[in-house]
Amino acid sequence: MPTPHVVVIGCGFGGLEAVRVLSRAEVEVTLIDRTNHHLFQPLLYQVATAGLPAPAISAPIRHILRREMRRGRLTVLQAEARGFDVAARQVLLDDGSRLGYDHLIVAAGATNQWFGHADWPAHAPGLKTLADALRIRERLIGAFERAERAADEGERADWLSFVVVGGGPTGVELAGTLVEIARHTLPEEFRRIDSRRARVVLVEGADRVLGAFDERSSASAQAQLQRLGVELMLSCRVEAIDDRGLNLHTADGPRRLAARTVLWAAGVAAVPLGRALAQGCGVQADRAGRVPVRGDLSLAGHPEISVVGDLAAAQSDGRPVPGVSPAAKQMGRCAAANVLARLRGRPTQDFRYVDYGSLATLGRMAAVVQLQLPLLGRVHLSGYPAWLFWLFAHVYFLIGFRNRLMVLTDWGWNYWTFARYARVVALADTPPQEPHGP
Amino acid sequence: MPTPHVVVIGCGFGGLEAVRVLSRAEVEVTLIDRTNHHLFQPLLYQVATAGLPAPAISAPIRHILRREMRRGRLTVLQAEARGFDVAARQVLLDDGSRLGYDHLIVAAGATNQWFGHADWPAHAPGLKTLADALRIRERLIGAFERAERAADEGERADWLSFVVVGGGPTGVELAGTLVEIARHTLPEEFRRIDSRRARVVLVEGADRVLGAFDERSSASAQAQLQRLGVELMLSCRVEAIDDRGLNLHTADGPRRLAARTVLWAAGVAAVPLGRALAQGCGVQADRAGRVPVRGDLSLAGHPEISVVGDLAAAQSDGRPVPGVSPAAKQMGRCAAANVLARLRGRPTQDFRYVDYGSLATLGRMAAVVQLQLPLLGRVHLSGYPAWLFWLFAHVYFLIGFRNRLMVLTDWGWNYWTFARYARVVALADTPPQEPHGP
Repeated sequence: MPTPHVVVIGCGFGGLEAVRVLSRAEVEVTLIDRTNHHLFQPLLYQVATAGLPAPAISAPIRHILRREMRRGRLTVLQAEARGFDVAARQVLLDDGSRLGYDHLIVAAGATNQWFGHADWPAHAPGLKTLADALRIRERLIGAFERAERAADEGERADWLSFVVVGGGPTGVELAGTLVEIARHTLPEEFRRIDSRRARVVLVEGADRVLGAFDERSSASAQAQLQRLGVELMLSCRVEAIDDRGLNLHTADGPRRLAARTVLWAAGVAAVPLGRALAQGCGVQADRAGRVPVRGDLSLAGHPEISVVGDLAAAQSDGRPVPGVSPAAKQMGRCAAANVLARLRGRPTQDFRYVDYGSLATLGRMAAVVQLQLPLLGRVHLSGYPAWLFWLFAHVYFLIGFRNRLMVLTDWGWNYWTFARYARVVALADTPPQEPHGP
Repeated sequence: MPTPHVVVIGCGFGGLEAVRVLSRAEVEVTLIDRTNHHLFQPLLYQVATAGLPAPAISAPIRHILRREMRRGRLTVLQAEARGFDVAARQVLLDDGSRLGYDHLIVAAGATNQWFGHADWPAHAPGLKTLADALRIRERLIGAFERAERAADEGERADWLSFVVVGGGPTGVELAGTLVEIARHTLPEEFRRIDSRRARVVLVEGADRVLGAFDERSSASAQAQLQRLGVELMLSCRVEAIDDRGLNLHTADGPRRLAARTVLWAAGVAAVPLGRALAQGCGVQADRAGRVPVRGDLSLAGHPEISVVGDLAAAQSDGRPVPGVSPAAKQMGRCAAANVLARLRGRPTQDFRYVDYGSLATLGRMAAVVQLQLPLLGRVHLSGYPAWLFWLFAHVYFLIGFRNRLMVLTDWGWNYWTFARYARVVALADTPPQEPHGP
């Protein structure tokens, strides 16, 4: 009998864990990813706000899996899955070729969504990939530069107004860090503007930020954000976005908010590949495009296909599994173990999400942490202790000793100097031959 | 009398030094640059070859000039000069506005040139800006990925063939580092290809590499490159470049070289702004587009305008000043001192280039150094001592303690582990909403 072949799509938290489990067994594994790196998404906002360079939070997939590759049964391909032929058990790749599998684990993740508003992404970019982060970095730094060059006070104020839409972890991180940049990093470096007068508004549809946390954490987060200098606009719906600002629907009626820089942290959807997979397998994707899975993370009628991470609409103990990295890792391990169980003719195990708690940072020395501890139950931290906890937890889970070292030294430097040395914009869209064209 | 206003265009080595001299005097200074950072160009090839992240070799202009700005007479604007109205003493900016000056120092630098071949830049990108470096990084890393996915041996060999055109310092650095990546960084990380079998060819028109060095250094460089594994093709002229390789004219007649990756390090020209300035002032730019200057670096008929760095066709002791960073720095200081002399009604000084020597690295522990020492005359170093000298000289001249620290730790890491952790490609041109689109 030939060695069974397992294909894993995506090298995020779920896919990477799945490959690690599979590569210890006697199976042939092919991992495909459209990029060449694993991305530590929880720190992506640090790249966007110039606190870290891109290589600090990402690692070449081949490098982090080099030990697994040395065993001789793992192939890594930089390729993009475009669809599936589930009857033939094949993945359709970007170059027109097909990749056959005996078992398939799809861990292709999530992307931004603007709820059908095709013009919003251009005015309010989202933050999911390294390219997104570098684009946002360029906008943030460019806004202060444009303010310095502005012809009049009104234009200046618009360039110094920043709106973050969405009060989840990414939104609060961006808003808090923006205030820090305006008040601590830049003040001495401009002549015509006072960067400290920059306005940072956080717009959220619900009546509190960090809706996935409990109310005590939300209240603490709101108090810390306001102390930092973030303006909170809760229970606000975005009606329209253009290059000069947004129209909001608030409890007091419609309202216009002028701002040259709007960042989008309000919507996440499964990648379109999820719908292609659901369609091929005759199941119905949910509203966010996620693929419903059975208890053991495989698809109904297709036990050879599993979906993990943000792409899966999974349940644990009757409750939906949240789209966070610990859940993706646990699902990746579970799905891989179930593939191996099936190959050995053993029963599969249902997925059970173990929730250790949630944490979010809000800026310099500000964070909220709620832990779920075995005997103590729920423990809350906020302010400086929460921030320290958040910091070391993130460094601990970073992949690669090199990255941990780099992030710690960079953060130490940023902390003491208030500088953000990654404030460098590469101007990728300038024609190479005419840097100073007439 | 109002405070005189000096405008400096460009914050490379020349412009930065000029601003530093000017900001100590009672003059109003405006520095404009199209990017937000000063770039340490001698290490740009390290960003292109994934040895360093972009922020390690660049620093925000506002940050490095924050002490000068604190004195209250320096304005920094991120803006692009598009032309000049020399009669009105105004610089024409990208937003249509005009910037008046009493004295002007133009230090806008150089760019790549492909000698009129409009299709070559797409096939053989050059290395002058951070964006160039990130583009080349993407190509180099992508080539090994494409080789791993290649359908047959011929395609695989083409993806594993790299050609660098131009045997100056940038060309030899790129070629030497490419071999190092193929032989030391990647070997264990692929399954279908043996990256050690990659072919790296250095094509040079003259009969030796490093033509600006003496023959002893050239010979040593060639021996070291060959020992590293670089194939040298000297006395070769490029006739055509396409996406599959190049046509060469050699001493033995025409020859085709198949390679999917071609890098261009063969031509430098002044930025187009130089011709605009020359035209406005009624002088004739030279063949490389550089502006001829008088002994004191000002323009004939326009003592209020000086040109420094790679944009200037300057002479020192009757010999042309080379386009290297020490010369640009010295010219920047000289031009600024002459502006101040004019404002004080004192005579200007002619520029005298002090040549301390030349150095070029060729890869791991390989370099050539020729020093010009006061009493000892010319001293040659090669191999490991030259490489150490090169290393510390470059770290010493890097701007910012932070960058020095970062480069040293990164290099230490790379040296001991052979890893190149910046092997991360951001995929900037992918549509943001469909990372896995069907």
